[in-house]
Amino acid sequence: MDRVKRNVIVGQSGGPTAAINSSLAGVYRTAKERGYNKIYGMIHGIQGLLEGRYIDLSEHITNYLDEELLKRTPASYLGSCRFKLPEIHEKREVFDQIFAKLDELEIDCFIYIGGNDSMDTIKKLSDYSLLNGSKIRFVGCPKTIDNDLALTDHTPGFGSAAKYIGTSVKEVIRDGLSLETPHGQIVIIEIMGRNAGWLTGSAALAQGEDCLGPDAIYLPELPFDVDKFVEKCRKGLEEKPSLVIAISEGIHTEDGTYISEFGSASDYVDAFGHKMLTGTASYLANVLASRLGCKTRAIELSTLQRAASHLASRVDIMEAASAGGAAVKAADEGDSGVMIVFNRISEDPYLCSTEVKDVHRIANEEKLVPREWVNEEGDNVTKDFVDYVRPLIQGDVSPVMVDGIPRHLYKPGYEKLL
Amino acid sequence: MDRVKRNVIVGQSGGPTAAINSSLAGVYRTAKERGYNKIYGMIHGIQGLLEGRYIDLSEHITNYLDEELLKRTPASYLGSCRFKLPEIHEKREVFDQIFAKLDELEIDCFIYIGGNDSMDTIKKLSDYSLLNGSKIRFVGCPKTIDNDLALTDHTPGFGSAAKYIGTSVKEVIRDGLSLETPHGQIVIIEIMGRNAGWLTGSAALAQGEDCLGPDAIYLPELPFDVDKFVEKCRKGLEEKPSLVIAISEGIHTEDGTYISEFGSASDYVDAFGHKMLTGTASYLANVLASRLGCKTRAIELSTLQRAASHLASRVDIMEAASAGGAAVKAADEGDSGVMIVFNRISEDPYLCSTEVKDVHRIANEEKLVPREWVNEEGDNVTKDFVDYVRPLIQGDVSPVMVDGIPRHLYKPGYEKLL
Repeated sequence: MDRVKRNVIVGQSGGPTAAINSSLAGVYRTAKERGYNKIYGMIHGIQGLLEGRYIDLSEHITNYLDEELLKRTPASYLGSCRFKLPEIHEKREVFDQIFAKLDELEIDCFIYIGGNDSMDTIKKLSDYSLLNGSKIRFVGCPKTIDNDLALTDHTPGFGSAAKYIGTSVKEVIRDGLSLETPHGQIVIIEIMGRNAGWLTGSAALAQGEDCLGPDAIYLPELPFDVDKFVEKCRKGLEEKPSLVIAISEGIHTEDGTYISEFGSASDYVDAFGHKMLTGTASYLANVLASRLGCKTRAIELSTLQRAASHLASRVDIMEAASAGGAAVKAADEGDSGVMIVFNRISEDPYLCSTEVKDVHRIANEEKLVPREWVNEEGDNVTKDFVDYVRPLIQGDVSPVMVDGIPRHLYKPGYEKLL
Repeated sequence: MDRVKRNVIVGQSGGPTAAINSSLAGVYRTAKERGYNKIYGMIHGIQGLLEGRYIDLSEHITNYLDEELLKRTPASYLGSCRFKLPEIHEKREVFDQIFAKLDELEIDCFIYIGGNDSMDTIKKLSDYSLLNGSKIRFVGCPKTIDNDLALTDHTPGFGSAAKYIGTSVKEVIRDGLSLETPHGQIVIIEIMGRNAGWLTGSAALAQGEDCLGPDAIYLPELPFDVDKFVEKCRKGLEEKPSLVIAISEGIHTEDGTYISEFGSASDYVDAFGHKMLTGTASYLANVLASRLGCKTRAIELSTLQRAASHLASRVDIMEAASAGGAAVKAADEGDSGVMIVFNRISEDPYLCSTEVKDVHRIANEEKLVPREWVNEEGDNVTKDFVDYVRPLIQGDVSPVMVDGIPRHLYKPGYEKLL
């Protein structure tokens, strides 16, 4: 006899992306199709759930158009959190509180969309369910622009950010060719990814038949030497009037000091006695200007790079939705303590399938760019890197334009929930 | 008897935009259709011409696809300059040199695509042609993201930048709703336009049925009071956990001191003794963090906002092309010392026609945002402002995507020219 299906709850966790809401749409669609009753959304993840904050998603996704809008809405529709559960033996009462809430809501499947920290949540909750004999299934759905999750070929959110970065860097390179400056000019573009260089390396996507690409790319995986960097720029300006260089926010010296720390040293104090913070790119732009006497500009792609739904990758958005669906399917079919991963079956044509993997092997792990995908000098990525990223940025998800601006999903009073 | 048509020369001047190459495409198309022989392009504007640097555009635009790619290529295809001609009575020899070059190239029409400084070039050259009896016609084609040219309803380049700003600000606002922070968070977005607030005001386009829009907008036309600003933010955080505020790069105090000067005061000196420069947004983010104890983030839209061809406005790109065509038509029909302007015939439906206006009334003038289009408190724009901008951001110019990234026009050896 078929078991009676009760409810599903889904949460979003960690940094927002352009694709995380597409996974949410995928969870919703598959849970509906598989006959679940209610699909709840945690507001601000597990932290909100602990405070009793959740919504009935069917009040927000009322038709197929809403689903399509949700796929095109950046950031976390449900709100996110960076809440790390305690170890089970340290504070059991937190877990009891969560399971009581889940039982009250008659939850069968708990889906959490997030990165490595979020997979720690899935790990601990599924571990605890073994202890307390709960039948709830806990499944993780991968998400992070940083692309640093273990065991999966890549993560939803990365492809769209990479497409935005490649496009924006290319536009900035063109811009740099416009005006001649007496002593040359250097633009430093600062890109997210404190430990993993996947996003920074994606600046190489700008290179093609119509663009020489960035003049150097510095990933956080390798130590950064300020003097060598200045020398590289000095030589570069002898050959070209305009350089564009991509750096990770997380570049650091051999001894582990972040370059950003140089820019925020305590000697930068403003008139009020406040410590001034300067970003990595700003700091390096200042160094270059004073050492080489050239014009410099620092551009931080900041949250623009993770929120740029208007330039999302179709492959990314569709894969994000299917990861959400696969998470529900896995939980529905009995899996728990697993995460959905992508498995690249073929390079050409690009083909990926989803699988489930034990979340114990994923949580708190970090996948970095392999050394062999960076050139010998350590100042650019190789063709293998670009070949790996290229399929993930293919295709467009045309925004739903209303009066000249992309439309997002929004229900009356939406912001009051967050 | 029809006069024998000889050659046209066209140059681009001032800051690059997403639409300036569309005007170049328009010049090329109309000059061809009107039977001109060669169409030359100055490399880096009048400065390059003085050095004998120019190309035959037909070697770059070889078919209709090239024209379409050119319309979608950001920055200045020909390279730009910020060269100001001397007064005629100060240095006649510069003018003699230019006219000798133009005569050598058998030029009938000289088209210059640019902003107020560039119109000064058209003014002086057409004035000089009256003195030396030259038959060359000098016509200006408007271009500037700043939208600060006199006598024209708006300028090509502005609409695309405004569309990018409205969209990006909206995405950043959504991003800001994702994560809860204990003491709230404030994002400051710094937008171009040192004297004119048209671009900064366009942040208001983010507001709609699905977005509350920015919480405050500060234009450079009104004095900026740091204390009032901090107080506004303090009150804002009492009502909302996440604020997004748009500021112009040119905001300044009552006595004319730019806020950016506070951030680059001489007391910010790094370990090498170099003066550190901080942007306006970074400075204000630092002030807010220390005075209010909230999380802050500074985002400078930098050159991204003027180079974002991937999100160009169709109205803007098409108008830019027609302005280029209208410039050639005007010159062909005998006008000189004029600029093409846009005249808004109807608001609803939006309808603009082109006209010619005496460049003497435009050069070196600056059109600012009228006081009545800013609210009483001076911290946001009015509905009239948005109603004025809205038609200019309508429609899309779908980028020609190749392997996931927008394609630009590029001919072998192109970069060597610049």
